[in-house]
Amino acid sequence: MKLASYISQGLPSFGVWVDASIVDVPALYRVLGKAGAPASVNDLIARGNEALDALRRTVREASGQFGAAQRDPGTLQLLPAVPQPPKFFCIGRNYAEHAKEAGFDMSPIPIMFNRYTSTLVGSGADVLYPKVSEQLDWEGELAVVIGKSHRGQIAREAAMEHVFGYTAFNDITVRDYQFRTTQYIAGKNFRTSGPLGPVVVTKDELTDPHNVRIVTRVNGVEMQNDTTASMHFDIPFIINHLSEFIDLEAGDVIAMGTPAGVGFKRKPPVFLKPGDVVEVELDGIGTLTNTVVLDR
Amino acid sequence: MKLASYISQGLPSFGVWVDASIVDVPALYRVLGKAGAPASVNDLIARGNEALDALRRTVREASGQFGAAQRDPGTLQLLPAVPQPPKFFCIGRNYAEHAKEAGFDMSPIPIMFNRYTSTLVGSGADVLYPKVSEQLDWEGELAVVIGKSHRGQIAREAAMEHVFGYTAFNDITVRDYQFRTTQYIAGKNFRTSGPLGPVVVTKDELTDPHNVRIVTRVNGVEMQNDTTASMHFDIPFIINHLSEFIDLEAGDVIAMGTPAGVGFKRKPPVFLKPGDVVEVELDGIGTLTNTVVLDR
Repeated sequence: MKLASYISQGLPSFGVWVDASIVDVPALYRVLGKAGAPASVNDLIARGNEALDALRRTVREASGQFGAAQRDPGTLQLLPAVPQPPKFFCIGRNYAEHAKEAGFDMSPIPIMFNRYTSTLVGSGADVLYPKVSEQLDWEGELAVVIGKSHRGQIAREAAMEHVFGYTAFNDITVRDYQFRTTQYIAGKNFRTSGPLGPVVVTKDELTDPHNVRIVTRVNGVEMQNDTTASMHFDIPFIINHLSEFIDLEAGDVIAMGTPAGVGFKRKPPVFLKPGDVVEVELDGIGTLTNTVVLDR
Repeated sequence: MKLASYISQGLPSFGVWVDASIVDVPALYRVLGKAGAPASVNDLIARGNEALDALRRTVREASGQFGAAQRDPGTLQLLPAVPQPPKFFCIGRNYAEHAKEAGFDMSPIPIMFNRYTSTLVGSGADVLYPKVSEQLDWEGELAVVIGKSHRGQIAREAAMEHVFGYTAFNDITVRDYQFRTTQYIAGKNFRTSGPLGPVVVTKDELTDPHNVRIVTRVNGVEMQNDTTASMHFDIPFIINHLSEFIDLEAGDVIAMGTPAGVGFKRKPPVFLKPGDVVEVELDGIGTLTNTVVLDR
């Protein structure tokens, strides 16, 4: 399933893509007179596999008769594909070519940093051009959504059982702020700089997350093009590594790092400007599209 | 007011210290037949100054007759003093003597890093001794609680209006993990490594946050003793600095950094061991006490 979170008629909700339209999940349960509708993607994830199976059955039972639950995707304001992740981890320099272009050796231990979830936006949302920097840069990435809360370290062999699904992430970075001190936090957390979406694809639909093509375009011009097969640390390694020190929770998101082709090491450097449209397209997930606008 | 968050009779709640006991706030509103009780410290902060004034009036009106709202502090399991901060920022090397002992020059720009809020615990809680490291270290700190959500940068002159109050923080750090890569995140986010409390003191009661004594003790032995007058970057500077890139929200917490006297640069180094009791005492706030226990 492909799950979209959005504002519809002024209220947050979520739905499932069926053919070319979105079926609102809480509305579908109402239409069918069924109780127990999950209220959000976060809620669905937290309720575990049974709720996901129940949702699948419910969509099937409707056999195309969605009535008032059907939504025109064009009228929806998309939210971050996981609207409120408990935690958001970013992996840095996980593609050798990107590490090289950025001027670093590969680290034998994953570089990790934090994205504050209040900086997340959905596909279609504006990304504010900072008032204090001209070095706004893109980073297209695969993001992994954790499916269950677990106390303690997760073995590599069991790690994929803890995955709910996948989405696309644009880890938009203000480069001068990233490198002003030893810690990346400021450059990685400018307001509205974290597009996540357009949808979460459940793992049964994206069966090989280690072979997903990532293409980033700015105003239609291709800037990044690689596949997740180039990742140095794979998803089980990262889940095992993170859970060594912190407990993973249902709805946590892990952005797996960006391939080569970011703007700041191009010759000459290329940065995003107001009016630019930046797209991150992942095969099997869709295209995350955002426009840069002046922060007034 | 001094506000404590806790589990009482199996449920999360919060109360106000009055003399030697805690008055449960939701219970007090029930006892007095008043509607509109804030449900938590987060809720109280989010509702703003009016709710705080209403709470003050309500406590006064009861004139010592708290009845069933009175709680024996000894029976309560304290939660982090702000149970669910939207964001938690840590400032690194904000005391020159600490920067020096750690082997760094002072940074002209504040070092900032993230604490995941799921790692927070209350006073009295166990801190788990890591399975993978023997370098568990203390860091006593003043923590600032933000009182209102604000879009955009906050001027230094206006910054203190955005403060709700203060609490104590022990930024317990796993030193080898802090320095394994360039980013501090792992060493600063081991499960249960963020004691916060025991209480939030509203800013009217702690009128000079830039002159608060911080004493850290391990098994009664003093390890840190300085005052917040030694901070290099003061609270208005940090609020202005953070809000340059990210919007501050009601309930956000900023830990202002630790003075000299941490364990890892002592000669010989001293680290926390299972069974150790670590206390962070801040004048006007109280003592944050935690015991290190084996992680089984």
